[in-house]
Amino acid sequence: MAVYTEVSDEDLRAFLRQYELGEVTSFKGIAEGVENSNYLLRTTSGSFILTLYEKRVRREDLPFFVGLMEHLARQGIDCPVPIRGRDGAALRELCGRPAAIVSFLDGLWPRRVRPEHCRLLGEAMAHMHIAGGSFGMRRGNDLSMPGWRPLFESCAARAQEVRDGLAEALERELGVLEGEWPEGLPAGVIHADLFPDNVFFLGGRLSGIIDFYFACNDFFAYDLATCLNAWCFEPDDSFNVTKARLLLQSYRQVRPFSQAELEALPLLARGSALRFLLTRLYDWLHHPDGALVDPKDPLEYWKKLCFHQQVRGPGDYGLD
Amino acid sequence: MAVYTEVSDEDLRAFLRQYELGEVTSFKGIAEGVENSNYLLRTTSGSFILTLYEKRVRREDLPFFVGLMEHLARQGIDCPVPIRGRDGAALRELCGRPAAIVSFLDGLWPRRVRPEHCRLLGEAMAHMHIAGGSFGMRRGNDLSMPGWRPLFESCAARAQEVRDGLAEALERELGVLEGEWPEGLPAGVIHADLFPDNVFFLGGRLSGIIDFYFACNDFFAYDLATCLNAWCFEPDDSFNVTKARLLLQSYRQVRPFSQAELEALPLLARGSALRFLLTRLYDWLHHPDGALVDPKDPLEYWKKLCFHQQVRGPGDYGLD
Repeated sequence: MAVYTEVSDEDLRAFLRQYELGEVTSFKGIAEGVENSNYLLRTTSGSFILTLYEKRVRREDLPFFVGLMEHLARQGIDCPVPIRGRDGAALRELCGRPAAIVSFLDGLWPRRVRPEHCRLLGEAMAHMHIAGGSFGMRRGNDLSMPGWRPLFESCAARAQEVRDGLAEALERELGVLEGEWPEGLPAGVIHADLFPDNVFFLGGRLSGIIDFYFACNDFFAYDLATCLNAWCFEPDDSFNVTKARLLLQSYRQVRPFSQAELEALPLLARGSALRFLLTRLYDWLHHPDGALVDPKDPLEYWKKLCFHQQVRGPGDYGLD
Repeated sequence: MAVYTEVSDEDLRAFLRQYELGEVTSFKGIAEGVENSNYLLRTTSGSFILTLYEKRVRREDLPFFVGLMEHLARQGIDCPVPIRGRDGAALRELCGRPAAIVSFLDGLWPRRVRPEHCRLLGEAMAHMHIAGGSFGMRRGNDLSMPGWRPLFESCAARAQEVRDGLAEALERELGVLEGEWPEGLPAGVIHADLFPDNVFFLGGRLSGIIDFYFACNDFFAYDLATCLNAWCFEPDDSFNVTKARLLLQSYRQVRPFSQAELEALPLLARGSALRFLLTRLYDWLHHPDGALVDPKDPLEYWKKLCFHQQVRGPGDYGLD
């Protein structure tokens, strides 16, 4: 929750003159999105989100993210639509930052996940994976397996501040994942950060998916693994197999997954848990005093990782 | 900028069943307001702000604040209108907090104050002061002169962490203000926190005043003094006499002020500067590690205080 860059009225009005959106009537910073500054912008022609991309987002990745939203929206996926200016460009500069305006999506993200949310999510994710197949750009996943060791090494010396023996345990896990990480699974464009606050629901349906700023090319099943972690654990860290079953079953009714994908799921879930554990650990150890955003607890993902280490097969995720 | 209390969909829907506002279509935390949690709520009948009152706001003061907004709106002042539920009540509970829904106001607060903003502000403030005259409730100003010494004493021992000699200088200033604080000036309901982020402008007019959660009964001129500090200094701490003149002149075209008010202005401006200096100093010294809100610099108000100490008369504020 943050607004890192304040935009003056004059700068905003000059920026909006490059669009055909009418006059601004309201402009409010919104407390969502950890990486960028997001404003709810209302003009005489409707509601929009204005995003200023802050330091963590690489400028050269932005055409991929913006192009992907445009592509997915055109394929019928409910996601923000980038708004092009009079010059045809959707990406430009504001207050020294790259910036874009996208359409506003109705809906609420679920503060408490119910099984029905997981069912709707599985279905929508499969449609999104299929729709991404015709997208012409590529972006590697810099937070997949090869990226974990450098991240681990930047935190290892201080990991015991978070939990006794954590560095040794992570070193062991990293060794297993590096040795057994699958190859050749079905792959394409994945969201890679499909947490509940990035998915809106309204009136019994999934009304939108937002925040494509980690999207990349990777295994489809890795997106599923991330959702198992983000949607199927209860606040007390227990695994809810009903939610997992609904997520996976509704997904495979749209995009059937192979035996290899199914068998890889526990390891991918361990990998995804490690990825969020490591980035949270990094933020935990490096967040500046007085930061605008509270760092998230890395140990939540340690517990999830331990769960997946003990999974014996797809049955533990509710599948036959 | 903060959302302290997360509201689940279920709680929100149950809450909204007590109103005739239709179905919720969107619900976003907004990064405005330091004291409370604010959400932009959109329903099938329009846009609203839902506020959950957090710890700093005393529950027994809420009927005054909510009643005041209702009263001022009825008198034609552009401010949020509290929305009453089916039972006629505007104040109720949500997630264990007092909560209220108010109307959404269009407009933008000025990130860069221009002289014209000050002119519009003076006029609107005078109308607000007059409109408050017929409001039936009273609330003392617990952050006026008698409240400063306890606040000072809770910070004095550590004031030198912020500036060398600050405690001694504040002790001296407090002595002066306690000795010379005026009595019997024209008084009524004042806003008491009329900073630029609480005033919206749109299309060349002032479109709304928000955040009445410091409103109280005190000298009208004290509200003016607070605005001299909050609107008439430049980012480099220099005083802009053109802005001050426009503020004061447009105010007195609506509510003429007495010679006694005019003469008291430098002392009231010192008092108001001390009040914000002390609360900022308190927050600076007491803010928890990892707080959601960045504390504001107390020394900004030290410089403003020093300016007013050297004012020789109303001419320094641009008046004859």
